[in-house]
Amino acid sequence: MKAAILGATGYAGTEIFKILLNHPQVSELFIVSSTKSGEQLSDVFRMLQKNSLNEKTKSTAGKIISLEEALDLKPAVIFSALPHKSSAEACCRFVEKSLVIDLSADFRFKNKAYFETAYGFPHLELSKNAVYGLAEWASESIKACNLIANPGCYTTASLLPLLPLVKEKVIGNSIVINALSGISGAGKKPEEKYLFSECVENLTAYAPGMSHRHSYEILEQLENEGFKGKLLFNPHLVPVKRGIFAAITAELTKKQTSEDILSIYQKYYSNKPCITINKNAIPQTKDVWGSNCCAIGWHIEAAQIIVFSVIDNLIKGAAGQAVQNMNICLGFPETLGLNLNSLL
Amino acid sequence: MKAAILGATGYAGTEIFKILLNHPQVSELFIVSSTKSGEQLSDVFRMLQKNSLNEKTKSTAGKIISLEEALDLKPAVIFSALPHKSSAEACCRFVEKSLVIDLSADFRFKNKAYFETAYGFPHLELSKNAVYGLAEWASESIKACNLIANPGCYTTASLLPLLPLVKEKVIGNSIVINALSGISGAGKKPEEKYLFSECVENLTAYAPGMSHRHSYEILEQLENEGFKGKLLFNPHLVPVKRGIFAAITAELTKKQTSEDILSIYQKYYSNKPCITINKNAIPQTKDVWGSNCCAIGWHIEAAQIIVFSVIDNLIKGAAGQAVQNMNICLGFPETLGLNLNSLL
Amino acid sequence: MKAAILGATGYAGTEIFKILLNHPQVSELFIVSSTKSGEQLSDVFRMLQKNSLNEKTKSTAGKIISLEEALDLKPAVIFSALPHKSSAEACCRFVEKSLVIDLSADFRFKNKAYFETAYGFPHLELSKNAVYGLAEWASESIKACNLIANPGCYTTASLLPLLPLVKEKVIGNSIVINALSGISGAGKKPEEKYLFSECVENLTAYAPGMSHRHSYEILEQLENEGFKGKLLFNPHLVPVKRGIFAAITAELTKKQTSEDILSIYQKYYSNKPCITINKNAIPQTKDVWGSNCCAIGWHIEAAQIIVFSVIDNLIKGAAGQAVQNMNICLGFPETLGLNLNSLL
Amino acid sequence: MKAAILGATGYAGTEIFKILLNHPQVSELFIVSSTKSGEQLSDVFRMLQKNSLNEKTKSTAGKIISLEEALDLKPAVIFSALPHKSSAEACCRFVEKSLVIDLSADFRFKNKAYFETAYGFPHLELSKNAVYGLAEWASESIKACNLIANPGCYTTASLLPLLPLVKEKVIGNSIVINALSGISGAGKKPEEKYLFSECVENLTAYAPGMSHRHSYEILEQLENEGFKGKLLFNPHLVPVKRGIFAAITAELTKKQTSEDILSIYQKYYSNKPCITINKNAIPQTKDVWGSNCCAIGWHIEAAQIIVFSVIDNLIKGAAGQAVQNMNICLGFPETLGLNLNSLL
Repeated sequence: MKAAILGATGYAGTEIFKILLNHPQVSELFIVSSTKSGEQLSDVFRMLQKNSLNEKTKSTAGKIISLEEALDLKPAVIFSALPHKSSAEACCRFVEKSLVIDLSADFRFKNKAYFETAYGFPHLELSKNAVYGLAEWASESIKACNLIANPGCYTTASLLPLLPLVKEKVIGNSIVINALSGISGAGKKPEEKYLFSECVENLTAYAPGMSHRHSYEILEQLENEGFKGKLLFNPHLVPVKRGIFAAITAELTKKQTSEDILSIYQKYYSNKPCITINKNAIPQTKDVWGSNCCAIGWHIEAAQIIVFSVIDNLIKGAAGQAVQNMNICLGFPETLGLNLNSLL
Repeated sequence: MKAAILGATGYAGTEIFKILLNHPQVSELFIVSSTKSGEQLSDVFRMLQKNSLNEKTKSTAGKIISLEEALDLKPAVIFSALPHKSSAEACCRFVEKSLVIDLSADFRFKNKAYFETAYGFPHLELSKNAVYGLAEWASESIKACNLIANPGCYTTASLLPLLPLVKEKVIGNSIVINALSGISGAGKKPEEKYLFSECVENLTAYAPGMSHRHSYEILEQLENEGFKGKLLFNPHLVPVKRGIFAAITAELTKKQTSEDILSIYQKYYSNKPCITINKNAIPQTKDVWGSNCCAIGWHIEAAQIIVFSVIDNLIKGAAGQAVQNMNICLGFPETLGLNLNSLL
Repeated sequence: MKAAILGATGYAGTEIFKILLNHPQVSELFIVSSTKSGEQLSDVFRMLQKNSLNEKTKSTAGKIISLEEALDLKPAVIFSALPHKSSAEACCRFVEKSLVIDLSADFRFKNKAYFETAYGFPHLELSKNAVYGLAEWASESIKACNLIANPGCYTTASLLPLLPLVKEKVIGNSIVINALSGISGAGKKPEEKYLFSECVENLTAYAPGMSHRHSYEILEQLENEGFKGKLLFNPHLVPVKRGIFAAITAELTKKQTSEDILSIYQKYYSNKPCITINKNAIPQTKDVWGSNCCAIGWHIEAAQIIVFSVIDNLIKGAAGQAVQNMNICLGFPETLGLNLNSLL
Repeated sequence: MKAAILGATGYAGTEIFKILLNHPQVSELFIVSSTKSGEQLSDVFRMLQKNSLNEKTKSTAGKIISLEEALDLKPAVIFSALPHKSSAEACCRFVEKSLVIDLSADFRFKNKAYFETAYGFPHLELSKNAVYGLAEWASESIKACNLIANPGCYTTASLLPLLPLVKEKVIGNSIVINALSGISGAGKKPEEKYLFSECVENLTAYAPGMSHRHSYEILEQLENEGFKGKLLFNPHLVPVKRGIFAAITAELTKKQTSEDILSIYQKYYSNKPCITINKNAIPQTKDVWGSNCCAIGWHIEAAQIIVFSVIDNLIKGAAGQAVQNMNICLGFPETLGLNLNSLL
């Protein structure tokens, strides 16, 4: 099977590349870039061992190719890790002939108002055809689609622990999400505030309340499952490269024991290979660092619950979930080619 | 003036030592330890430049002394950075003759039930005489006392932004504090979970809800100012050495603009040299790293407020506030010998 | 095939465990510990996803077993990541029936004097039968042996770039190795100096000259290839979890261009899948973080050469090379089950 | 006394600013910038506590001023932390009327060839009048000059341990310097390679041999003291913000004990307040983090010596030494306003 990646030099794109190099169903791999076409992959991706590169990139002579060349090669699947807006433009050209998995936000929303508030440009028509690819919640629709909008990293870390509680109506109408993210979430573009010397030994928050774009993405999905309340989303920036840790607080609508909550999570996730339910422990990002797993834990204090979740923002929060979605859509085993153990 | 430090080899104790070496009112400095008495200070404190050591430790020939020797030397002030329980035992022996500033939790509580729930041993009689040394809130009582219970680090970071809002009754009866702490908060005792290789690239939380001892300390102080609601306190562990970042969410009891909140903070803190009010910016721990300042910011989202605060857990959260309390009690300028600029 | 691991809770041992969980030739995996036998693997190895654990540890019901139980189960291969001395004792009991791969230093030396100087206890008789498992240099003897002494991490990082130059007699009789190591090289035992708060923002060196045990191990191997000069080995401790960076300086015995050096490395390593030859770039540990590769670069300055090499100390410097050695000995493809791309 | 700073927004410039805010002899402080003139200091330097800012910047209403305004204000001393070339241009305009301390490389060289090889533009005439401000070695000429070329960070860390050994002719004609630097050495300009996510968990070297500009600066100063041999300088980049650790190896010209070396260092440095001689310990950067000290240690192995030194690259390697030079030149106590204890 042929696969192509747009935007492979960013953090998420490089992770897709690394996963697909080891994926047994991908035999040919095209790296696509308008600005770098013609360059040798081994010059650009020094962390990738030459032998593994050569094997799957023979047909393009180990080179980066242009969008036009990629269209001609008719890949079965293309992944786009381009920035929003330019991602949609590129995806549109492939969507008739290939399975398109878009890691940008361009096709994530059905709610036009939310999209336009969050992103500041008009909602895209094609979004109607896209499936929101939260893998554990959309597997049936993923199987039948050719355009997958891969969820955001904060969104994945928030929705996976929240959706079962919302569906079972055990939490009230006010949710507060405090989430910590590693710096790779900000991408590879050089900005002063993401320099090592600016980030090390520093803790801060940014875009609080509903100021972060992911807050609307979270809200739309919660509302889809019946949530009618309000949300506060407080993202923090902390000095790690990878990892999201979310601590979510809400009122319980009725008395719940820790065992009750366990039952709810088991109902939704006991057969989900990428979800780890931590019965008696608070998860740590090092439990899932480099893996496609999300680990979930919780604590009940009187009538309130605190839910904890951890993911690797680049894997389950981006590249890994994208490949998981490909696996589901194309009928491969869900975790094929994905790592489920921590790499730290 | 003579000053003594018990427990100077821990992180907070060493910071007291460093501050007092530069404090113009301290002429003689005694480092007290039952296990290390007789050892050379310059062997134990390699990061302290020998000249500065020699000047103020001449009378003890640059050596660590025992508790008995310290009692004989009648210091005007003693600081205890010993663990709780053993701190109270040592402090009791000095309290008649010296100003005692205790950094442990032993004398922080008036509420017996809270203390005993949090610490698991009986409330101490002497606590009645102790002043809770949150410097910006207790300066009058500090001036008149001889036993100061120095607040906890999380407590300081939480109370300084919360007390004005509680006093002005602008926030409702449910407060959620999410706080991130550097690893030095766990002290210098070797434990596997605090090894560099266990902490780097890792994010986690611990002791959530009301499981952390500081939650009761926060609650007692909030209740003293009229708070009658419930509290959730979620401490996190993140890979920095120093710093606490707190994000506190609550309902507003009435409509408030950002300017209204600014007025409240100005009312309480405009003449407080260690409080920085950030009108339009979320604070970062690098703004106060190594300084005795607390910086406060806020965000209003509909009927809810998120308040942010940052301190250096070892300085404003421990050693710096202890010296600030000494300054207030002994009638020196409040910030004498204290650093107010970030050192990072 | 059955495989067993002694000392799996340490950093190197856990990496062996993770590699073997994904190794297609290992069907049953035994985790052996005298102190933890009977405990559930999923409690001890939280970063390992339960499904992957269950598959290969069914026969022991997902539990840690004792040494005696392991002997009864007759594994085809055992890996020991125990501390030296206790490792030899355990290995002796398996060596008749299993391939034994020892990650300790117990069997690494033929030179008795060097061993006894470095380790302070008598040289072990069984060392005579052991093959020094520097995989790229000993593949023929590895195929024919049943006891492999897996090299040290610093040693691997030093010998791989040095041996070709020594064999080709292009470098003189004085070698200076400056090597930087991540903190995981010190193991998981809690010691104050390896606490996060002690290591972060700190750079230092230790055991310089010939004070570090690995210096004798390096020297013995260099002498085996004809080196007759002197060595200085300066290990440094720097705040990363994983990685060794070595910068090695020596005089050239005759004029050499950069192309000449390239030819030498190509002669020895062009068919070695775990060696990356960097023609025009200084390697970085992030090129090999988490992989079993060693990347080599060099710079010529007048009559002197500086050679650079990088490895992941836990993979090519320990667990990965151990599995590579198993693969070679048992006739599997050399890199089977091993990761060759950076994971960072 | 009036002081001005050019280039105060960079790392070194900000440190000068912080030191001078606390310097008892500086009563007025001007921050000069062509691009930011008119901006409020409290907006640009958020880590600086407002009260301390106000006190010394009253005359400019707490604002950044232009170069022309600064010339009119006739500061007694100006510090330039501008990039080379633009620094020389600015310094020339002040040098008649003010003491000029230039932190760039523009005036560091007397050897034209070395300067032009290293910097690629013509040697500046004015360099003839400049004193090379290695404070411990040039105090007499500093007292008599009005233009000080402040040494580079690597240079300071290398020369302070080397010069006594070169002057006493105890080391041979081949010196190898391996030095590790924190990322702040690369400045604040955003570049991909200095992003947090690119630097964390990474170790590398760059500009080896004689490729780094500081290698010529070191060589010129060594030659001034009689060194006639060759130098290899290998700088490394490691994930800390601050700190340089240098490990320097050389042959001994005659047998030396560790005590002999101690005597040499005592001869040159026993009365130098910013030099710490570590008799039996390898220094660590955390011993001098944030301080103006250089700590020196050594190890003798047969006929070779390894010398270790540590500095804070932004303090003794830049801003601190600049203020030390001002103190010496203007007749203040050498360490006035400087911190000599570690701040970490």
